[in-house]
Amino acid sequence: MADIKRVAILGSTGSIGRQTLEVISTLPRRFSVIGLAAGHNTELLSKQISRFKPRFICFQDKTLTSAEYELLSLEEIASRAEVDIVVVATSGKWGLKPTLAAIKAGKRVALANKEALVMAGGIITGEARQNKAQIIPVDSEHSAVFQCLQGEKQKASKIILTASGGPFLGYSPTQLSQVTPEQALKHPSWRMGQKVTIDSATLMNKGLEVIEARWLFDMPFDNIQVLVHPQSIIHSMVEFNDGSVKAQLSQPDMRLPIQYALSYPERLENPELPRLDWEKIKELGFEPPDFDRFPCLKLAIEAGRKGETYPAVLCAADETAVELFLSKRIKFNDIPRLVGQALNEHKSIAHPTLEDILAADAQTRGTVKKMVGGQR
Amino acid sequence: MADIKRVAILGSTGSIGRQTLEVISTLPRRFSVIGLAAGHNTELLSKQISRFKPRFICFQDKTLTSAEYELLSLEEIASRAEVDIVVVATSGKWGLKPTLAAIKAGKRVALANKEALVMAGGIITGEARQNKAQIIPVDSEHSAVFQCLQGEKQKASKIILTASGGPFLGYSPTQLSQVTPEQALKHPSWRMGQKVTIDSATLMNKGLEVIEARWLFDMPFDNIQVLVHPQSIIHSMVEFNDGSVKAQLSQPDMRLPIQYALSYPERLENPELPRLDWEKIKELGFEPPDFDRFPCLKLAIEAGRKGETYPAVLCAADETAVELFLSKRIKFNDIPRLVGQALNEHKSIAHPTLEDILAADAQTRGTVKKMVGGQR
Repeated sequence: MADIKRVAILGSTGSIGRQTLEVISTLPRRFSVIGLAAGHNTELLSKQISRFKPRFICFQDKTLTSAEYELLSLEEIASRAEVDIVVVATSGKWGLKPTLAAIKAGKRVALANKEALVMAGGIITGEARQNKAQIIPVDSEHSAVFQCLQGEKQKASKIILTASGGPFLGYSPTQLSQVTPEQALKHPSWRMGQKVTIDSATLMNKGLEVIEARWLFDMPFDNIQVLVHPQSIIHSMVEFNDGSVKAQLSQPDMRLPIQYALSYPERLENPELPRLDWEKIKELGFEPPDFDRFPCLKLAIEAGRKGETYPAVLCAADETAVELFLSKRIKFNDIPRLVGQALNEHKSIAHPTLEDILAADAQTRGTVKKMVGGQR
Repeated sequence: MADIKRVAILGSTGSIGRQTLEVISTLPRRFSVIGLAAGHNTELLSKQISRFKPRFICFQDKTLTSAEYELLSLEEIASRAEVDIVVVATSGKWGLKPTLAAIKAGKRVALANKEALVMAGGIITGEARQNKAQIIPVDSEHSAVFQCLQGEKQKASKIILTASGGPFLGYSPTQLSQVTPEQALKHPSWRMGQKVTIDSATLMNKGLEVIEARWLFDMPFDNIQVLVHPQSIIHSMVEFNDGSVKAQLSQPDMRLPIQYALSYPERLENPELPRLDWEKIKELGFEPPDFDRFPCLKLAIEAGRKGETYPAVLCAADETAVELFLSKRIKFNDIPRLVGQALNEHKSIAHPTLEDILAADAQTRGTVKKMVGGQR
């Protein structure tokens, strides 16, 4: 019998965290839960603790103290010797420090948090090389690319990241200006957390993924193409130097890339995971993204190309703007406007340290709130 | 610099043979032509000889005798020590013996001939294992599957062979009964030899490919699915035990699978090979094959499942029927009828030797000709 890998899940009550626990539940001979970390959802975390009996917990609410587990910080869980795999499924900038801690401890990191690589891709990938830590992407797009690269001796010459296009594909600028948070939260093909669902509607999510792909696969921005594919069946593609293209396909279900990040380089039989039914799939469609109607995609790629602290500003401005949109203080179109303004006003720092990056993050959040406050 | 692989091309004046020479011409630092074999096209073979200066030649027309090369049989070329890679691009049953000779000599066989594996898959794959010979498929579908399997530790759980559907996709039975050889020779997406083009129109070609896939990838017939995909962009797909599917895509151009069979496990930069242009690809369509309108597909899979000498009968009956159709002695619909009748009348031999297989082949050719003669 293969040995059981001990998995710590940072962000266990979120969408990816819960689906990671589903995967582990179906494969008890291969994986066990050694650590859980969550933000605010005491009720769900308590249930997860009683069911999976982890040894390490990170939680704000100290009423959960118990003799049955140790209360640790995110970074402590990520670097404990007993942990084999760290699933980083916290949202936003909270993923950055534990990701770095796990990498410095030489862990396998199943990375679902986008901001860590977007904000500090150079630092993280440098540390991963130095500490021989594996970063296995959990995003369906990057998992697809990673799967397509297996067994290839030559570097890819091009990455084609597919995008569902979100719920507002084909909307006119006027229609876009009027969409509500309720509409934006209805994604046509994926079930995800609120922040990433709004980012999918603005295409900011795809822009962040382009920056992630640049770091994960050491690929120049010029060789990363975004392609709208509304059915979300092809999760991404890779082109090689002979013109051959490989694609990875599946039903849109995050449990597959999660399981692959845990089981890699193996694949594990799991009848719970859905199969593609080719009797039902009649066509797969493709179209180029509309950079004018979805300016976040362009802003993200520009910030990625500029590098330095710009990507951190991008993330912070977007996160703040999305919060403001969800609380109905700004309109959907204000998201790219505010992000663009924050990037314009930013004084960037070359070769930033982690502290510089976090300072740019904090400053930007203040700037964006001030911009909105000033309007009212 | 990598060493130069010496390639022998059996069937050098056919479609695959000519395209193999094109590929080698663009990669002179990696491949050289050591042997050429052809059937009847003296003019083209003479040109190929002067251009590529091979050491070994196989040709019927003895006027081509020269002091500059040795005249050998197909099997002799396939097994000479100086040869690194044997491209088997002869059509029909002529591929069988040289394929076996190359395999027994432990060569890499770039296999473009379908009949060898269809007629004698068990014998060929058994010898390949024993002699540690590599069989790298050149058919675009099997090359796609082979590429998708690279780097995977688990066996595939399913193979999805795509089919263009040929020029008569969507034709009614009445329309099908009236098609001419000229119409059948116009394939919508691939340029190929006459025999394989007619086989594509009847879907017999896909049936032969199912049998090939069974042998190449040790896959049960139940786990091989045929899917019509008229654009011929996805060349085939593989499903794994976690539900993940990998596909290989490219412009329909045989030079890619030919080059891959030569360069494997590497890929070689070749700007001559076309790239997919995602600005132009709007959709990829899929539909199940129509086994009633294209009975050859069903006949082939049934013959494959029965095994023994049935697949040899299938090949011989089909080859004979296609010749009769091309010379306008029978109608398009007569092809499946004659093949079905030949299979019905055949007395099969269990655990056939190569001689049994070749005897079934010869007998069937006579039977089919007699069936047609008797009608007139």
